[in-house]
Amino acid sequence: MKRLLLLSFSLACFQAFSQAPDKNKLEQLTEKHWQHGVELLQEIVSMPNNAVFPEQIEVNIKWSEDQFESRGYSSERLATGGIPLLLVEKKQPGATKTALFYFHMDGQAVDLSKWFQADPYKPVLKEIQENGEWTKIPSDRLKTEYDPNWRIFARSTSDDKGPVAMFLTAWDALAEAGISPDYNVKIILDFEEEQGSPRLPSAVVKYKEKLAADMMLIMDGPRHTSNEPTLSFGARGIADLTLTTYGPKFPQHSGHYGNYAPNPALLLSQLLASMKDTNGRVTIPGYYDGITLTQTEKEILSKVPDDEEAIQRKLGIGRTDNVGNSYQESIQYPSLNIRGLESAWVGKEARTIVPATATAEIDVRLVPESDPERLFGLIKDHIEGQGFHIVSEDPTDEQRMNHPKIVKMVYSISYQAFRTPMDSETGKWLRSAMNRAFGKDPVQIRISGGSIPISPFVDALGIPAVTIPTVNADNNQHSPNENIRLGNYKEGITTVMSILTEKTQDMIRLK
Amino acid sequence: MKRLLLLSFSLACFQAFSQAPDKNKLEQLTEKHWQHGVELLQEIVSMPNNAVFPEQIEVNIKWSEDQFESRGYSSERLATGGIPLLLVEKKQPGATKTALFYFHMDGQAVDLSKWFQADPYKPVLKEIQENGEWTKIPSDRLKTEYDPNWRIFARSTSDDKGPVAMFLTAWDALAEAGISPDYNVKIILDFEEEQGSPRLPSAVVKYKEKLAADMMLIMDGPRHTSNEPTLSFGARGIADLTLTTYGPKFPQHSGHYGNYAPNPALLLSQLLASMKDTNGRVTIPGYYDGITLTQTEKEILSKVPDDEEAIQRKLGIGRTDNVGNSYQESIQYPSLNIRGLESAWVGKEARTIVPATATAEIDVRLVPESDPERLFGLIKDHIEGQGFHIVSEDPTDEQRMNHPKIVKMVYSISYQAFRTPMDSETGKWLRSAMNRAFGKDPVQIRISGGSIPISPFVDALGIPAVTIPTVNADNNQHSPNENIRLGNYKEGITTVMSILTEKTQDMIRLK
Repeated sequence: MKRLLLLSFSLACFQAFSQAPDKNKLEQLTEKHWQHGVELLQEIVSMPNNAVFPEQIEVNIKWSEDQFESRGYSSERLATGGIPLLLVEKKQPGATKTALFYFHMDGQAVDLSKWFQADPYKPVLKEIQENGEWTKIPSDRLKTEYDPNWRIFARSTSDDKGPVAMFLTAWDALAEAGISPDYNVKIILDFEEEQGSPRLPSAVVKYKEKLAADMMLIMDGPRHTSNEPTLSFGARGIADLTLTTYGPKFPQHSGHYGNYAPNPALLLSQLLASMKDTNGRVTIPGYYDGITLTQTEKEILSKVPDDEEAIQRKLGIGRTDNVGNSYQESIQYPSLNIRGLESAWVGKEARTIVPATATAEIDVRLVPESDPERLFGLIKDHIEGQGFHIVSEDPTDEQRMNHPKIVKMVYSISYQAFRTPMDSETGKWLRSAMNRAFGKDPVQIRISGGSIPISPFVDALGIPAVTIPTVNADNNQHSPNENIRLGNYKEGITTVMSILTEKTQDMIRLK
Repeated sequence: MKRLLLLSFSLACFQAFSQAPDKNKLEQLTEKHWQHGVELLQEIVSMPNNAVFPEQIEVNIKWSEDQFESRGYSSERLATGGIPLLLVEKKQPGATKTALFYFHMDGQAVDLSKWFQADPYKPVLKEIQENGEWTKIPSDRLKTEYDPNWRIFARSTSDDKGPVAMFLTAWDALAEAGISPDYNVKIILDFEEEQGSPRLPSAVVKYKEKLAADMMLIMDGPRHTSNEPTLSFGARGIADLTLTTYGPKFPQHSGHYGNYAPNPALLLSQLLASMKDTNGRVTIPGYYDGITLTQTEKEILSKVPDDEEAIQRKLGIGRTDNVGNSYQESIQYPSLNIRGLESAWVGKEARTIVPATATAEIDVRLVPESDPERLFGLIKDHIEGQGFHIVSEDPTDEQRMNHPKIVKMVYSISYQAFRTPMDSETGKWLRSAMNRAFGKDPVQIRISGGSIPISPFVDALGIPAVTIPTVNADNNQHSPNENIRLGNYKEGITTVMSILTEKTQDMIRLK
């Protein structure tokens, strides 16, 4: 017992006073271990992981338990009423800080017909040809060769099993070198992220004591499109809104009732057109309230090396919406995006009718300044101001006869935005780690446009959260032929090692 | 030879000087023959007649040839390059006038799953129950019983084989009574009407000499909703327009590009909203030019016994568009009806994207005053005035980069409207026949809202055309469970007899 205490004490001293490995040392460790890391990656992506099929997920949960337990972690399934969350934990003697890492193990569904390989769950190594096509090369070549631009293709290589494999590889490399973090590591593994993590928010509240930590480090998502090392300090939240307008109760012959029965598609167009101007700015008063970008903030945003001309060329757009003065500025604001429209039929299915209904699907990306309930209140007021009677169910006959314009408004708030100050201690601490690994400041994103279910953690645990994305931006995430660039995989291992070896004792100094 | 001439002469004299059968006589003849007529109806609807399948249509053509030839008609298939038209003709000795009747023998497709009978081509006699449901009763009951509200259910009972069977029955009844028309009868049978009669317009021009007549009598479509005997003096024409707007080249993540990549669904909504006001009136200058309803015309329109309150209740609309001051007035104007909208997905399929395109399908019902090319010219000018660059194919990369707002505009004109003056000699002649049959003026529709392919005849042959609709308005035309009300079938036989016995010698007097 005494011996054990002594050992713990000496280890703690070693961590506290030893130098964190420098850039060279991190590169050496990466070089020694990346091939083992690729094997781990190949193993992890070989397990189908569509969360629509709980039996697939169970295999992934069991695998995760085994992997972390074999590395000395404790593990616990957190019951959610459906697919559980997995919390694994490794305490460090003498540690005063705890970092909570977030990964997810489930992947998007696969549409086999659109993959250029027989099985999206059998990883394939590919090399790009001069004509821009990816062709298969033998995996064996990785034993003696390395090209950072080679890629491994399989579902979840980037989103998000690649980062899990990077973490395990980094852990193994450090363990072999006798290096441990000077802080406690908790890892929450989500197995339903691609389903919108429906059970996560309430689970986070329920298990807030088990999850307690000083900071949250999210290992998900792609680097900035420049493919430079990146830190992302927040993500927009997301809510959605469905608007349905009503014409005749059933579709009517457009000859008999065109010019007579009010057309729901016209009503919907008029309503949508009333919400935004030709520059794509929301015209509903108050929608952007509370958002002011100071000169300092604008400078931070302008440091992100976006090539806007290239973005616009890639997207095939001759102009952009004018919500902000740049790409980074535009995503500091909440959006109001028509993601889908439908009324009766188009194309060969088109029929000569006055449709019965028209529907618009809208998504609203949220920023910390925009309380979603406030936004939906403004939208509601605006719609009523346009002369619409708002219902929450299809209108009754009586409602139809009593109200000239009716719209069904249904909305749901998935989760809020989060944004951690760049000059927080967590921000400074991570910048320090990245600088040690790469000899330069990372690209720093104030808030990313997309959404990740992190605000429940931020809110329930009251901790700062920062995303450390590692994978290439062109990884075909959510699409067929998902892949990870070998260079990103290696640098990802280096990145994780830099973070696991960054001293938390220094955090106070950085404050 | 001499005898034959003499016979012809005496027949002509008989026709010229004999009295046309009065209301009683017509009713007696109908009473004697309607059961035979029902058998004929049951036979005619038993032949499947979806023009997508030419082998089905061939059976219908052959049947028609046999039927008319056995009644002394000559017949000729008019080649069209596809399914032919059938022209049958019966000359009358001494006749100075020729009437061209129009029927079609093809029917809408059938969706078996939605019919409440095993086979839509096996007619079923039904009676309505107190709960509003139609239940089958034995056809045999027709041998001894009659209820005008019983209905025969089968595809094409109303649209448009019912009228063909009425015609043949009326012909047989008159023939047995020794009565012939005092004019030549030509009948054009269309076998592709439900396909939009694609080959009809050019065929009419090609065969204009064979089709030559003094008037065209269209036996298709339902009576006025009051179910009173009806004459319809015209029909709106039809054209269609497809508008497609463009956002990013491929759908983009709405988090990454919401607020940045212009949204095609917003562009389309703004464009559509710019075309009509909140009362459904087209705001494009000149769209309604040339249409002025005089006090006389407004009076004619107001005589139609529309129960607008009932229409609005049935449609479930608390207001109407405000193009005209009444239902009849509204259809005197061209329409601009959004018949379909689509952009990406709605409902469970909705995805968090900025869509790549948005499409609106529009149909334009035409009136004689509205040259469709002029209307589309106005629409084009208006769209350009909204800042759009108009293309006819999906835009190239260069077009995308050079034009901030792009719309693809594709339109096609099916056929124009026609409208025969109510006080034309044909109008007076038909009114006289209907008065003789029913003892009252028919409901007279100046122009019907829907479209029928008659303007090619009117234009090529230079003759007036009037529709004599006979079937019940609630016949489920174009829908599952098409039917004909027995009372309408009987009155339809009477109607045809009244027309076949109306004297054309009187037409001059009526002028």
